[in-house]
Amino acid sequence: MRILGLILFCLMLPGAARADTMATSAGPVRVDEILTGLHTPWAIAFLPDGSYLVTERAGALLHVRDGRARRVTGVPQVAAIGQGGLLDVMVPRDFATSREVFLTYSRARPGGAGTALAVGRLSKDGAALSNVRILFEAAPGARGGRHFGSRVIEAADGRLFVTLGERGDRPSAQDRSTHNGSIVRINRDGSVPQDNPFAGEAGARPEIWSYGHRNPQGAALDRTGALWAVEHGAQGGDEVNRIRRGVNYGWPVIAYGRHYSGARIGEGTAKPGMAQPDFYWDPSIAPSGLMIYSGRLWPDWAGQFFVGSLKFDMISRLAGDPLREEERIAGAATARVRDVAEAPDGSIWVVSEGRGAVYRLTPMR
Amino acid sequence: MRILGLILFCLMLPGAARADTMATSAGPVRVDEILTGLHTPWAIAFLPDGSYLVTERAGALLHVRDGRARRVTGVPQVAAIGQGGLLDVMVPRDFATSREVFLTYSRARPGGAGTALAVGRLSKDGAALSNVRILFEAAPGARGGRHFGSRVIEAADGRLFVTLGERGDRPSAQDRSTHNGSIVRINRDGSVPQDNPFAGEAGARPEIWSYGHRNPQGAALDRTGALWAVEHGAQGGDEVNRIRRGVNYGWPVIAYGRHYSGARIGEGTAKPGMAQPDFYWDPSIAPSGLMIYSGRLWPDWAGQFFVGSLKFDMISRLAGDPLREEERIAGAATARVRDVAEAPDGSIWVVSEGRGAVYRLTPMR
Repeated sequence: MRILGLILFCLMLPGAARADTMATSAGPVRVDEILTGLHTPWAIAFLPDGSYLVTERAGALLHVRDGRARRVTGVPQVAAIGQGGLLDVMVPRDFATSREVFLTYSRARPGGAGTALAVGRLSKDGAALSNVRILFEAAPGARGGRHFGSRVIEAADGRLFVTLGERGDRPSAQDRSTHNGSIVRINRDGSVPQDNPFAGEAGARPEIWSYGHRNPQGAALDRTGALWAVEHGAQGGDEVNRIRRGVNYGWPVIAYGRHYSGARIGEGTAKPGMAQPDFYWDPSIAPSGLMIYSGRLWPDWAGQFFVGSLKFDMISRLAGDPLREEERIAGAATARVRDVAEAPDGSIWVVSEGRGAVYRLTPMR
Repeated sequence: MRILGLILFCLMLPGAARADTMATSAGPVRVDEILTGLHTPWAIAFLPDGSYLVTERAGALLHVRDGRARRVTGVPQVAAIGQGGLLDVMVPRDFATSREVFLTYSRARPGGAGTALAVGRLSKDGAALSNVRILFEAAPGARGGRHFGSRVIEAADGRLFVTLGERGDRPSAQDRSTHNGSIVRINRDGSVPQDNPFAGEAGARPEIWSYGHRNPQGAALDRTGALWAVEHGAQGGDEVNRIRRGVNYGWPVIAYGRHYSGARIGEGTAKPGMAQPDFYWDPSIAPSGLMIYSGRLWPDWAGQFFVGSLKFDMISRLAGDPLREEERIAGAATARVRDVAEAPDGSIWVVSEGRGAVYRLTPMR
């Protein structure tokens, strides 16, 4: 581990601070290349001391302080197959006292793999995760490497939401006896909140909060504390949804667009009892991380949605009611965007899978 | 008033207890004619002492004890035009101590009339309402007599929901600067809850909880405390909706069915950002009151929806997820059903506008 840490340290030394600019509707943006040499980075989360964590899908959790990245020890073993691996990382609001860090990842289990949520305590120096416990594991899991999700969100009340793909098993997204294609809600200790919508339904998985999702890989709270998610839909049907208790989001019975085979989807684009998206992209952009901006450095963007696009190498900015796409922010930093996050200082950070790098956006002075 | 009370007393004396039966999927139901001689009755509400209140649209609130109806004094002046007049009556959970009764009605105002919510204290003998205060008044109101709503519901947290029609002014249902076509949420003293979805939006009416409604005339809480409403839609598009915070229910941009002129509606049946109904009736039934049953006397019906039909002289029973119509309960008692309510003992009461009467349904022994 020490040797690996040293190698990573050398690979990821910050070079001469490379700064670039990108044009946006809010004026030119300064782009700083913060970290390079990453292998399929997936998510980023900030710690209160100014350091941050980055996941690599193959299984590495990196702690980065002052431009120096070290691989954190004690991370659970991941099943790095297809789209699976180490996925999201989330730092809760009480981190300063709890030192807890949450991870989602694909975990091997009988019959294949399922998305799991684990929590561990990060050491003071950021080098090690200890007391790692699995809080939730999606069942029944599946073989194959498609549609694991996943993001983990700390709600305003401290409960946790985890977004889960349907593992390529479309009908299972409508089946409340599986976690596939759902967003689950659990207490911080992994137990099930009594007011979950299907907690009293025979045969249903009690963790389910909403269902009928295809592959939600981005999620965020808005300024009112409401949960939103973006999901990879069918061809021409990637969606933004406000996530509401007990709601069926329709996949694969309804969806905009078509199956990637060209076949028509289920019963069409709408059906009573199934939610419409709040917005959909056609053509599909392959949406990854979702960030809803505070307005701290760009007041005009307060409350707006920033969604990474894996397919079109850009960040899609959405605003308004109804939501519409107002801008596509693109530059060298937005090659296959996997995550978009706001740092505590209001700067916007971009995790580029295409570049294997992390970028920081700030307004040009 | 005394003379009027005496006249009403004579008109509404209970005759020989007339009992009838109706066939239902749960077996035969006994139908007792409880009160007759009513003129366009609209709503019913039960008091803890076994007496009850009935509204007549022209403006009378009747207090009925032991089969004897008396007109309550002190009721606000109503603008009885078209569908307007004295509409809903609601007895809150704390009535035994507060003696408060809530009424909705159309109230004259500059430019026509709007739906108002008032509260007053009912005297011990049920003869008089005093200390009547207006808690809410829909603005801007309109001329004409169409689509006032309205029901008033006491939420689990004590706040009040009032359902409001779009007054025949279709585009106003999408306009958050008017109350038309919305469901509003207020505190019991008439003030606006700070967490209302548009409370901070410039130009929006802060009382609005949901919008895009045509004419919601039925509403109830389910066993989880969630609010549901039924509304008169377009031809072939009467709806049941679970009412969620801040949601746009689509009228007149989307709807099932067609305008009664035969013209197509807005943009079709679905649109991103606008809710789908949970159920719709085609052909339209003209839905009035909604009751969600406790299961007290008919355990098989627990949690199911009973909706009065003005057009087809029946009660539509809905159940399941997704909701579907399981049965139409019909008989002499269901002539132009205006309200359906559950009494504290679990019997189902039906207000028949066609008969000008109130009926009580109980299981046959």
